[in-house]
Amino acid sequence: MKPAFQIQRRVEFYETDMAGIVHFSNFFRFMEACEHAFIRSLDHELHGMLDGLETGWPRVHATCDYRAPAKFGDLLDVRLFIDEVRPRSVRYRFEIAKGEALVAEGRIAAAHVAITPDGIQAVPLPGPLRDKLKLLECGGLPPLSEPT
Amino acid sequence: MKPAFQIQRRVEFYETDMAGIVHFSNFFRFMEACEHAFIRSLDHELHGMLDGLETGWPRVHATCDYRAPAKFGDLLDVRLFIDEVRPRSVRYRFEIAKGEALVAEGRIAAAHVAITPDGIQAVPLPGPLRDKLKLLECGGLPPLSEPT
Amino acid sequence: MKPAFQIQRRVEFYETDMAGIVHFSNFFRFMEACEHAFIRSLDHELHGMLDGLETGWPRVHATCDYRAPAKFGDLLDVRLFIDEVRPRSVRYRFEIAKGEALVAEGRIAAAHVAITPDGIQAVPLPGPLRDKLKLLECGGLPPLSEPT
Amino acid sequence: MKPAFQIQRRVEFYETDMAGIVHFSNFFRFMEACEHAFIRSLDHELHGMLDGLETGWPRVHATCDYRAPAKFGDLLDVRLFIDEVRPRSVRYRFEIAKGEALVAEGRIAAAHVAITPDGIQAVPLPGPLRDKLKLLECGGLPPLSEPT
Repeated sequence: MKPAFQIQRRVEFYETDMAGIVHFSNFFRFMEACEHAFIRSLDHELHGMLDGLETGWPRVHATCDYRAPAKFGDLLDVRLFIDEVRPRSVRYRFEIAKGEALVAEGRIAAAHVAITPDGIQAVPLPGPLRDKLKLLECGGLPPLSEPT
Repeated sequence: MKPAFQIQRRVEFYETDMAGIVHFSNFFRFMEACEHAFIRSLDHELHGMLDGLETGWPRVHATCDYRAPAKFGDLLDVRLFIDEVRPRSVRYRFEIAKGEALVAEGRIAAAHVAITPDGIQAVPLPGPLRDKLKLLECGGLPPLSEPT
Repeated sequence: MKPAFQIQRRVEFYETDMAGIVHFSNFFRFMEACEHAFIRSLDHELHGMLDGLETGWPRVHATCDYRAPAKFGDLLDVRLFIDEVRPRSVRYRFEIAKGEALVAEGRIAAAHVAITPDGIQAVPLPGPLRDKLKLLECGGLPPLSEPT
Repeated sequence: MKPAFQIQRRVEFYETDMAGIVHFSNFFRFMEACEHAFIRSLDHELHGMLDGLETGWPRVHATCDYRAPAKFGDLLDVRLFIDEVRPRSVRYRFEIAKGEALVAEGRIAAAHVAITPDGIQAVPLPGPLRDKLKLLECGGLPPLSEPT
């Protein structure tokens, strides 16, 4: 399956730990960096406004399965797939690979929220962004039965 | 259910992001800090030796569900539960709370490995550590049917 | 010389790098954590308001000399000294030690600023905070000749 | 003055803090990333061997002056200058800029050490690396009086 987007990342020294490999928490940063580069590539501002309120994308879920270690200097491919575009959230899947070898596989679910005086509240995705994301959705759902 | 162990963590400024809350990747660091303090409390060296080989605990899986934001200065309780003690790995579950409010819930599966000249290889948990962990296991499995 | 404040920090696994020691950038985080705990101990809110504008403490200078490595699990003492209280900034000095051994020595200069629509602007320290800091100042300046 | 080397870095979301700008500790990571890319560009392995001992480059000093804030998504130029090549250490200077604007200026002194059973010990720079570095040295010393 073709990814919707991908970036390359060189593993930095400060991303390793005393076991000599990338600390597991950093894979979540690699995934998010890819997600943000993807949103940028769609000409969309990550932090926008809706009816005078600031909006953002807090994570509601994140997971990662580690297949092989990554080391300092490794050039990693981070591939993004759109599992599902929901009315108020997006579910991404990621593959992190070193050449042919899969290093890690992860998922992030990001909610679209407005920051109100009373706290944060989930709000619909901006229409133009939603349309672009839907074209790249690959969640394994048959297009006709796609739920809202 | 009573946790097997718990720590408190004050949220540091450098753990926040521009959304004004703890960056989601840091919850994995909070969980690991709790796991390591737990292992230390059992008088066990995290990085030991087995038959002349260095051993370690790489993560094979990590996941987190985010329930509420945590902010700079918040005092968080990180509670550790032992979901399952396997022959060569341990599955932990964590709750991160701020007072009565659950902030996040996560899981980490850590393999016990030896570092050989040919790479890493899963090896049995050290006996004394395994025995201590088994006493605290709470994975919802009836003790009699507990698999090895 | 007696520090104005001090904290203890256990070195976490994610703070180490592949050289097996604490990554040098993390010492700046240890220093800031100590500074923030100190400000908290003075009953002062780190991020306050001045004439309806948000205020903050951006760093204008930071430096560290590394004397000895720190390792995973080490219990570090982080000691804060107030080198100089200026009208719109504070200059801190820090010692980071492991038992009797000095591990690192650093300095941070933090400006007090208000966030205006046109950018940030240095503003006078809040009076009550300034008074408390002055009592702990140790910058080697004779008290009578203390400049504003 | 022309830098010996430079890289570009996009500011990532996880590099910001609740003040909405890059956390000051991350500038040290930007500098080190540039240093490591530079060493890589010279076809030199950062972590080598000397007489059967592992070698490394621990930092003995690091400093940064902050001139202007950097924000999420900013494209930063990180420029490396070689201030001085010493027998057992190198002193780098860095400029971090956003377009025409200087954002930060820093320095890192890195010692070349061998890891012996008794601890770390400063050792001479590898000859081929030293020769390449000397050609790019710009420390303001007149070439003829350049000390070893």
